[in-house]
Amino acid sequence: MDSHPKTRPAFARWLGTTNDVTRTFLAAGRIRGLINMAGGLPAPETYPALAVAEIARRAIEDHPGDTLGYGPIEGLPELRDALAQRFSTGGLNLTRANVLVTTSGMQGLDLIGKVLLEEGGVIAGQFPTYLGALDAWRPRLPKFRNLMLDQPGLDPVAVLTGAQFAYTVPNFSNPTGRLVDTATRESLVDAAHRTGTWLVEDDPYGGLHYDGAPLPRLIELSARKSPGTPYGGAVLYMGTLSKEIAPGLRIGWVIAAPEMIEALTLAKQGSDMCTSGVTQRIALGALEAGLIEQIQPSIVDLYRSRRDVLCAAMTEHLAGAFQWEVPSGGMFVWAVARDASLDTDVLLKRGMEAGVCVTPSSVFDAAGQNRRAIRVNFTRNEPEKLREGVKRLAAAVHAMQANRN
Amino acid sequence: MDSHPKTRPAFARWLGTTNDVTRTFLAAGRIRGLINMAGGLPAPETYPALAVAEIARRAIEDHPGDTLGYGPIEGLPELRDALAQRFSTGGLNLTRANVLVTTSGMQGLDLIGKVLLEEGGVIAGQFPTYLGALDAWRPRLPKFRNLMLDQPGLDPVAVLTGAQFAYTVPNFSNPTGRLVDTATRESLVDAAHRTGTWLVEDDPYGGLHYDGAPLPRLIELSARKSPGTPYGGAVLYMGTLSKEIAPGLRIGWVIAAPEMIEALTLAKQGSDMCTSGVTQRIALGALEAGLIEQIQPSIVDLYRSRRDVLCAAMTEHLAGAFQWEVPSGGMFVWAVARDASLDTDVLLKRGMEAGVCVTPSSVFDAAGQNRRAIRVNFTRNEPEKLREGVKRLAAAVHAMQANRN
Repeated sequence: MDSHPKTRPAFARWLGTTNDVTRTFLAAGRIRGLINMAGGLPAPETYPALAVAEIARRAIEDHPGDTLGYGPIEGLPELRDALAQRFSTGGLNLTRANVLVTTSGMQGLDLIGKVLLEEGGVIAGQFPTYLGALDAWRPRLPKFRNLMLDQPGLDPVAVLTGAQFAYTVPNFSNPTGRLVDTATRESLVDAAHRTGTWLVEDDPYGGLHYDGAPLPRLIELSARKSPGTPYGGAVLYMGTLSKEIAPGLRIGWVIAAPEMIEALTLAKQGSDMCTSGVTQRIALGALEAGLIEQIQPSIVDLYRSRRDVLCAAMTEHLAGAFQWEVPSGGMFVWAVARDASLDTDVLLKRGMEAGVCVTPSSVFDAAGQNRRAIRVNFTRNEPEKLREGVKRLAAAVHAMQANRN
Repeated sequence: MDSHPKTRPAFARWLGTTNDVTRTFLAAGRIRGLINMAGGLPAPETYPALAVAEIARRAIEDHPGDTLGYGPIEGLPELRDALAQRFSTGGLNLTRANVLVTTSGMQGLDLIGKVLLEEGGVIAGQFPTYLGALDAWRPRLPKFRNLMLDQPGLDPVAVLTGAQFAYTVPNFSNPTGRLVDTATRESLVDAAHRTGTWLVEDDPYGGLHYDGAPLPRLIELSARKSPGTPYGGAVLYMGTLSKEIAPGLRIGWVIAAPEMIEALTLAKQGSDMCTSGVTQRIALGALEAGLIEQIQPSIVDLYRSRRDVLCAAMTEHLAGAFQWEVPSGGMFVWAVARDASLDTDVLLKRGMEAGVCVTPSSVFDAAGQNRRAIRVNFTRNEPEKLREGVKRLAAAVHAMQANRN
């Protein structure tokens, strides 16, 4: 009776390039008692649920057309204006034409790939590279050139020449948590202006400074090269409300030259037509109410204290096996094994058997080669869990070392 | 001072394949007094704003984790279960594993393209073809083979053989408003099962029947070939809440074999990670409250009466220049010029000068060749505007004809 044929058309090739680690993570959610320090998740107790609930009700009642109808592809004009105003500075002159609202920061990455990549197109990607960016661009089968921002003697012009775009996370990079210094920022912007290569500044963590003051954004440095004019330079600045209000809104934005916004808008039209008016109006209501400014200090205090707990526990239990720098912001500690032969893909599996999950470095390498480091998240779990997670991880490391000796 | 280089990396080639008509539409929104019968827009007075506002408030207050956090890529389990239940029938056995929640129906189309298309991959597309589907797949540079469902002697096996997938809108197709009859549905499903080619059943208008009773879905016909088992056949059934509740939620779904849901999930991961928990929980709340069942009868009555107004006005003013069938559902009348040399791309421009906007047939043809028909929407405007719009359109047609004589 079943007439299903044996063969179906093949899936597109890029689907064969995904890795096992993603599936392992998906399985992690189903393991009881596992301490998950792998994700990039905010602490759910920071979500301002009651405030957002009331903003949502009023947004839909007061603006039924905006919230429930189709909106402009680029986003609600009032939200684009609010974002242009929020990110304008003395030297950076933004208007609505510089702003595209996206359905999450991830969509911004997808749209950039659609607009700039043919198969085999070259991306100069800050290395190690955000896993989500690798995922977003995979369907376009790009080539990666590693942009090593910490390497002495870095020549950004050489790395950017011939690339379609460079991808950077200057503030507390995912995965390394590093803050890119001002001199390097300036050299990146200079290289983008000299080579013509677009420069993506992905900034989900810019609001999460725990120690020092913020450094100038790449887009501000770029704007200084054409003072007094509306922004038309090489930088694409990307942001999101996921870390400052809540990921469930799926509201992000790209701020860039109008010609780039127009191209991204064409790509967005065929991706989801427009972002939900409900979530856009909630975002606008939250910005107008100053919700970020209200809740950010307590989020920063909470995450700073969790970072300190994690780093103290790591110093106690993992200093023999790993080395790391204490990050001055963001959500992650990046720890590199002292022993170059310790394989952190294997550590992921041993750790999960011991009841803890961290992210192995291989997933942040388009070539999958880098297997010596781990990314440890400190924002999601309470202090006791962070300490217990580190102990379990240390036990897994020691078991691996014992097996080899 | 300005160091912007003269050249930037080229945009991807597909961006050069978009047409002028889209830009003309975008301009339409800024013309005062224009009667816009071009879009596929619901009547905003049908949006149940107060009900949705209250559902939204409660969803966020009662489910802060679901609404404000990151959710599973595939969608909230409860929403997937509700959709599996909603579309299961005696012969169609669906579980959560058959359901992917998408950020709008458009995203479903984008994900299908990502999963099934390499550059040059073949799509057997019901002709004329939904513009949004052409837009969604353009970045993957497909080839189109026209699937002419109204043509006598149609051989679906021949058209589907070697295609990655077939694309159909069996209920009140956008743009033609045609209902595909049961015999043709059966022959399509048979062809999909014989050739292995995936068969996309896009069904945004399935709830908008004005005259007869619904015909069996392709996915139901496909399920009958393997009775008693969870669905694993060749059909991808796509739906959306845009026409039944409100487009601003941007909630859609794909129902398909689990292997296809898994592939689409990988594509969704790199597209927007997950759909907003806020809008998913609103959708679930609306389904649980029976909101669709409450409002659908009045929506159907409203749209049926507007269809009748439009068709009466067209009979009075346009019957000399065009012929059409009265659609038994959906949102559009498709009118074909009696004079094969009447160019509806030109009519779009003349119509806009006369204060009316309809959609020319060229945008529903991947090759842009079909310039003899127009798509007229009847759901958005009140009766008086529909009548006035038709009069303006008739005046534009007559002016074009007079110019040629």
